[in-house]
Amino acid sequence: MKIVTCVAPVNIAVIKYWGKRDDKLILPLNDSVSTTLSTEHLCAKTTIMISSEFQSDRLWLNGREENCENPRIQNCLREVRKRAAKSGNNENMSAWNVHICSENNFPTAAGLASSAAGYACLVYALSRIYEIDGDISAIARQGSGSACRSVLGGFVQWNKGDQDDGSDSLATQLAPANHWPEMRILILVVHEKHKKISSKIGMEQSVKTSELLKYRVSHCVPQRIQDIKQAILNKDFERFAEITMKDSNQFHAVCLDTFPPAVYMNDVSHAIVNFVHCYNKLKGHNALAYTFDAGPNACLYMKEHDVPKVLGLLSVIFPFPGEEDSYIKGIPINKDTIPQEMQAAFGMEQQMEGSLKYIIHTRLGNGPKELKSQNEHLLTESGVPKNLVV
Amino acid sequence: MKIVTCVAPVNIAVIKYWGKRDDKLILPLNDSVSTTLSTEHLCAKTTIMISSEFQSDRLWLNGREENCENPRIQNCLREVRKRAAKSGNNENMSAWNVHICSENNFPTAAGLASSAAGYACLVYALSRIYEIDGDISAIARQGSGSACRSVLGGFVQWNKGDQDDGSDSLATQLAPANHWPEMRILILVVHEKHKKISSKIGMEQSVKTSELLKYRVSHCVPQRIQDIKQAILNKDFERFAEITMKDSNQFHAVCLDTFPPAVYMNDVSHAIVNFVHCYNKLKGHNALAYTFDAGPNACLYMKEHDVPKVLGLLSVIFPFPGEEDSYIKGIPINKDTIPQEMQAAFGMEQQMEGSLKYIIHTRLGNGPKELKSQNEHLLTESGVPKNLVV
Repeated sequence: MKIVTCVAPVNIAVIKYWGKRDDKLILPLNDSVSTTLSTEHLCAKTTIMISSEFQSDRLWLNGREENCENPRIQNCLREVRKRAAKSGNNENMSAWNVHICSENNFPTAAGLASSAAGYACLVYALSRIYEIDGDISAIARQGSGSACRSVLGGFVQWNKGDQDDGSDSLATQLAPANHWPEMRILILVVHEKHKKISSKIGMEQSVKTSELLKYRVSHCVPQRIQDIKQAILNKDFERFAEITMKDSNQFHAVCLDTFPPAVYMNDVSHAIVNFVHCYNKLKGHNALAYTFDAGPNACLYMKEHDVPKVLGLLSVIFPFPGEEDSYIKGIPINKDTIPQEMQAAFGMEQQMEGSLKYIIHTRLGNGPKELKSQNEHLLTESGVPKNLVV
Repeated sequence: MKIVTCVAPVNIAVIKYWGKRDDKLILPLNDSVSTTLSTEHLCAKTTIMISSEFQSDRLWLNGREENCENPRIQNCLREVRKRAAKSGNNENMSAWNVHICSENNFPTAAGLASSAAGYACLVYALSRIYEIDGDISAIARQGSGSACRSVLGGFVQWNKGDQDDGSDSLATQLAPANHWPEMRILILVVHEKHKKISSKIGMEQSVKTSELLKYRVSHCVPQRIQDIKQAILNKDFERFAEITMKDSNQFHAVCLDTFPPAVYMNDVSHAIVNFVHCYNKLKGHNALAYTFDAGPNACLYMKEHDVPKVLGLLSVIFPFPGEEDSYIKGIPINKDTIPQEMQAAFGMEQQMEGSLKYIIHTRLGNGPKELKSQNEHLLTESGVPKNLVV
């Protein structure tokens, strides 16, 4: 019997992945670049137990048992076991079954991309159980494409690769989290009013129907990847912000060019975009950047010294109902009080109270890690979840 | 002294014009195709009086005097006078001044593109006063780009032209209105919540910043122009609908790819898009098409026999507050009563009451025409507006 517990981070793409060249191996049409967020505020946590006594592989997600036959889970299990067999480690374990228990430390209802953190955590924990070394991003990729970026910290590039077998479609670190310690992130959680198209389906439809996606992939992204890498290495926030915003807009443009259109941003999302452009106008330069994934929530990037003013203005333009403490989670901070003149000069009308659900204030962080304390395990000694939802 | 009164139609582009290759001459980057709507329900009306006694050129729009020095108005006046001088007609009038009075028969607050009808009407009325013959689309174009399409009826193509002087950037008729008499149009007027970017500014920003616009212009539009011309000539509604929807989506995609993004559609607009796709799914084919200009209002195309069901479903999904009569204007029609089963099968939630302001039911129509009755004139015999807003 063996047990490990790990946490893995959420990552937010600044150059977006949208469209696969191989659906089965999850190989992308273009490179992407992401930032890994600190696991302090957002993470997946997974305990895996392996035992000769387990009758079958079993899986619990957020306290509920799920079908372990899910092909994406099976892909990860198969690839890790194949790698372990090759290395010759733990041969006695090769026929044993696993119990997997996974949780997020943030509500799934937040609409934050939880599958990337979840699959990265699963694969990282499996790699510890089976004691395999070397790159695991290609295995995580086969769980969920963007999960491959969550196996590393800081700034990460997912190289699309050229091989048909996906062997060169790997994530690499561009810079660790401590390369740019002033970088701060605000996640603005927006009410989701309508059921949206899953990103898997949206992406498939875009590949089939969007003419603009072809041009994005072949002409726009390669240049942007070069430019944003340079901006990251030089800690050039202005440039980083501009490329990030433009790439988010272009990704949503491609979604709109899809037939039928895949619409992920709503009126509140667009009001946030407007807020960011107003803020940058006020400051006279790009001090704030937005990016939106396949949903209405915004991820804002800024340097540490801008956080109090941004939060102050956010609370004016997107008034929070009720207690502020429950609206701003994450790193504690005192927001600025915004003088009347600044509010008037900001150039944007106040939005409806409650347009934002809440805000998470966080920073960049490292890749997955193992938690050694026994208290951290999500499974009991007999291999069932400590917190079972009945 | 001479007086003429004319009406000119609104046109709705199905292949969109977005981006100029020459800002001064208003020469477009790509061809566009439009349908001309009947002047019964939507039109501009203009009276022009010319007299040796007028001290200066004067202009009234919707009852208020405006500055006649507006360069777009001056372009039209100059070009018409140049043409008249060339033809040698009415030489005595060449030094006379004009009084121009123009009105729309629909509220400008509706956010419908009124400048196309307005400039087409101005130029047509001037052409009657000065008795000039031949193409007037190139003159209307210099007032407002899309106005050149409103000088013709039915289905109209604006050829971008290749000449630097714009001499071949003209509108031509693809088919008259009676070529496709079953075609019906519903204009869904949506509440405009936020001040939007003018299309002139939006277009300039797109040309400067959107990489996707380049590809749209060079690769997507030329094929679509060929395809939609064929669909119109063959009266192939399915094909017409698909191309129209895709081009509307791509136009808004390019707007979103602009930096900062130009957002014209809102949540209600996207709910209408969803409605149309649900309707087509229900019918099993593309029986309904949407297109959106630089604003949140939708223009829906369908064949006559679909109108009662579409209106019935619209009133279920977008409930009208108050009296129905004031919500559906234009061609009178009895909408279908929608059975519970159909509503359930439709697959879309009911939207908030009042999401739509009102609906105009109309058809295709002819180009501008002169109204011969004295009663129609908007100016008194002394050349001042009959309806002056004080």
